[in-house]
Amino acid sequence: MGKEKNSFVVKVPKGTKDWYGKDMVIREKIFSTITNVFKAHGAVTIDTPVFELKEILTGKYGEDSKLIYDLADQGGELCALRYDLTVPFARWLAMNTSIQNIKRYHVAKVYRRDQPAMTKGRMREFYQCDFDIAGTYDPMLPDAEILRITSEIFESLGWKGRYTIKLNHRKILDGIFQVCGVPTEKLRTISSAVDKLDKSPWAEVKREMTEEKGLNEEVADRIGEYVILKGGRDVLEKLRADEKLYANESAKAGLDDIDLLFGYLETFDVLDKISFDMSLARGLDYYTGVIYEVVTEGSAPQTSEGQALQREGKKESKPKKGPSNIDGEEDRSNDPSVGVGSVAAGGRYDNLVGMFSEKANLPCVGISFGVERIFSITKQRMEADASASQIRTTEVDVFVMAFGGKGFDGLLKQRMEIAKRLWDAGIKAEFSWKVKPKLPQQFKAAEVNGVPFAVILGDEELAAGKCKVKEMGLPEGHPEKDGVLVDLATLEVEVKKRIEGAKSKASLEGAVGAMSMEGAAGAPKTA
Amino acid sequence: MGKEKNSFVVKVPKGTKDWYGKDMVIREKIFSTITNVFKAHGAVTIDTPVFELKEILTGKYGEDSKLIYDLADQGGELCALRYDLTVPFARWLAMNTSIQNIKRYHVAKVYRRDQPAMTKGRMREFYQCDFDIAGTYDPMLPDAEILRITSEIFESLGWKGRYTIKLNHRKILDGIFQVCGVPTEKLRTISSAVDKLDKSPWAEVKREMTEEKGLNEEVADRIGEYVILKGGRDVLEKLRADEKLYANESAKAGLDDIDLLFGYLETFDVLDKISFDMSLARGLDYYTGVIYEVVTEGSAPQTSEGQALQREGKKESKPKKGPSNIDGEEDRSNDPSVGVGSVAAGGRYDNLVGMFSEKANLPCVGISFGVERIFSITKQRMEADASASQIRTTEVDVFVMAFGGKGFDGLLKQRMEIAKRLWDAGIKAEFSWKVKPKLPQQFKAAEVNGVPFAVILGDEELAAGKCKVKEMGLPEGHPEKDGVLVDLATLEVEVKKRIEGAKSKASLEGAVGAMSMEGAAGAPKTA
Repeated sequence: MGKEKNSFVVKVPKGTKDWYGKDMVIREKIFSTITNVFKAHGAVTIDTPVFELKEILTGKYGEDSKLIYDLADQGGELCALRYDLTVPFARWLAMNTSIQNIKRYHVAKVYRRDQPAMTKGRMREFYQCDFDIAGTYDPMLPDAEILRITSEIFESLGWKGRYTIKLNHRKILDGIFQVCGVPTEKLRTISSAVDKLDKSPWAEVKREMTEEKGLNEEVADRIGEYVILKGGRDVLEKLRADEKLYANESAKAGLDDIDLLFGYLETFDVLDKISFDMSLARGLDYYTGVIYEVVTEGSAPQTSEGQALQREGKKESKPKKGPSNIDGEEDRSNDPSVGVGSVAAGGRYDNLVGMFSEKANLPCVGISFGVERIFSITKQRMEADASASQIRTTEVDVFVMAFGGKGFDGLLKQRMEIAKRLWDAGIKAEFSWKVKPKLPQQFKAAEVNGVPFAVILGDEELAAGKCKVKEMGLPEGHPEKDGVLVDLATLEVEVKKRIEGAKSKASLEGAVGAMSMEGAAGAPKTA
Repeated sequence: MGKEKNSFVVKVPKGTKDWYGKDMVIREKIFSTITNVFKAHGAVTIDTPVFELKEILTGKYGEDSKLIYDLADQGGELCALRYDLTVPFARWLAMNTSIQNIKRYHVAKVYRRDQPAMTKGRMREFYQCDFDIAGTYDPMLPDAEILRITSEIFESLGWKGRYTIKLNHRKILDGIFQVCGVPTEKLRTISSAVDKLDKSPWAEVKREMTEEKGLNEEVADRIGEYVILKGGRDVLEKLRADEKLYANESAKAGLDDIDLLFGYLETFDVLDKISFDMSLARGLDYYTGVIYEVVTEGSAPQTSEGQALQREGKKESKPKKGPSNIDGEEDRSNDPSVGVGSVAAGGRYDNLVGMFSEKANLPCVGISFGVERIFSITKQRMEADASASQIRTTEVDVFVMAFGGKGFDGLLKQRMEIAKRLWDAGIKAEFSWKVKPKLPQQFKAAEVNGVPFAVILGDEELAAGKCKVKEMGLPEGHPEKDGVLVDLATLEVEVKKRIEGAKSKASLEGAVGAMSMEGAAGAPKTA
């Protein structure tokens, strides 16, 4: 092949990035934390193609459809990269009508031609972790389990006390709009305006409702009295005591759902993480029942007009500090979580599958976890408490080395033989790919990767049928600081025993911090 | 949202598929088998975007460039879906010049606008598992470790004795072509012709060389004498004894490499899996040293002209049975592996990184495992020995049930409380999402998913502070067939003890077949 050089900048496409090193280890740990919870609740995983027929995605995302990446027309079918994992799941259910109920999770990349904001974890290519339940069950039981799963995941990530699940119900919202006097044809567009309360003050949203969308000002003011409500059972009781509202069929159905759900959430020990919030509306059209979003402490500052919380990939929240900031005047501009937006969101969508096939219609409820945002927050918290520096990127347990005096030939064949024996025994091992490596270089290679054990070969020891096993990073004065001689014949057993011992010791230490990485817990403090 | 119905067929794009159910479990097991071996050799993983700037891919794949999927030009950069994982890896190395050596693996989907052959595992979207070593080391040591890893992977997959690693060296091939009299400007095009020997007889390849590519017939005949050579050290000795060939600088360098490599492979216990094969040429331009491909028994039948082995995504091998078939006349038309082609392939590419940045040039060697093909063969072998039927798709350990007589209220709250306690204890559990489920329905739900244990609640037992733990599928007459009563207070401990017991019993049984799935090993035989 020639030596032709490129004349362009070598880079990744805008809004995408390479993942490697410690970032990759942290992200993998987040994936496994999330999927382990999914599995504990009986989920199976499916995998759908990264692109779909264009017409599958058409008409599902409203005005966000402009963010869809199309494939070039190179002859054949017209395709587009998936925008989320929910529509492909619904398409799959419509194609597999024998499946009448399923709990499925799907961890995969999705694509949006959006303005990237990399530091806040808003990318054009990003991972979602979705969990959805399809099937007909008694009311609110799958919905309750989704919220229980959500809570388990953030507890497992070590976010105890640092996240809130905002909850609302489409039928309650519709009921509120109806009793306030919103004409039926304006229900969805007024809902979209309310959806902006997470980033805009009420005055702005009201202006949009009245000036742009032609709503009567009195109607808007009545809506304004509802959307500031948030809390727990107190809000539920207040709304049920609102005779005009509770007389509305839609509102009543929604409020009764929430009442049932609250009981289940109490049993599941989740109710104290819930904020029942009338300003939560969710952008997507397809929700039909409960809707929810998870925000973490300081996702965005609050204002007196309601919570200014950034949500969805497309929105940027700039922390605004009004004089009436009810949380006080603390400066959060260095808080990694400010502006990151919601870290998970979802709801019930009972009609989406039916859009693909009437006979396949199946009620569904689900949630999507935004891994990049969870990653951004996790990483900055780890850097703050210095636990990031302890992360290992490889899992190697043993570095096989050799040393010798004058005439030392490197013992390459012997190092290879020992490495082979360790691999055969299921032990993770490396050795230097040099014929005659120097001992300090071999130690350095082991230390750089945090390898916890060295097997050290020398001519004399080999002649006596022995070699040295050394735990790396033992303190000065430790009786085994210089390693212990073991019989070559039982090397695998001796090494395994020491690896197990170090691991069970590390897992005891690691139990202290929920988010300490497995790799970090196993990493030796090199001397 | 309205009830507008689509007027198109709901399907996936051509050459793509959804993965779910047992197929998904088998594929996940293949992934973990492969990546566990990578990790045992000190590999780290990286993740690159699914699309690259178009110019990154340009000029890397020769005539296969027409198979690249472009993204539509929607303004901004021109991008294309990745064709393999090697070029993105080289691009990443060129962008990260501080990284002077790395062992990286990458498991991800790649895209080729090719004619699909789904039953043989040839797709337009498919997974590759790549392992590559970048860095400057003593000769042939990384190359030997790649082949050791390859062997470990197929042994771990249970393919002992059923696979062959075909090996050659670009410098030997170039040397052969030179001594046979191929003009320098025709070296690559003649190499491409030899590459077709895996699917075409020699007569056809010779015709291409002479009639299409204008090679002198005597030169072609001389090449014909070399490319039929295959074996082990015998072939190496024969070629080194060929004075004219060994006097060629390129051939000598390649043969000395192979000599060194054979020594290392012997130490690594891999040499007996190698077929040193002069007909192996590999399609891609960028290889500079050793090249290899893994074929499994009967990947394609042999002919007297050499091995007719299908390779690369684009080729279809139709089992041809010539009268001179040297393997005998057995009919392999039902052999799942016939026509599947190579299951892994790779080689050394020392100049690819330098194509992106001269100062970043790094020698590399790697291999790519074709997961879909390995999956096709694995699945059909599992179906043949009936082990596929034992695969579980979920990992749930406990189904929480309730039963009662007249006036039974379903004990929903109690079932939820017990499920919550089990989840809190890290136990995977489900319960029925019905307020008043019938006992047979609950047993059926547990059996369908192969859940190994039931926790059964009843009013009387609860009043006594107890509940029943039942291992599913115990034979008639077993003392614990109807379950055992345990104290509610110590339920988690009792359940965990039983799950551990069943797992260690199952793993003993599971050790019999290397490819028996973990889930299958843990699955109960329901009564």
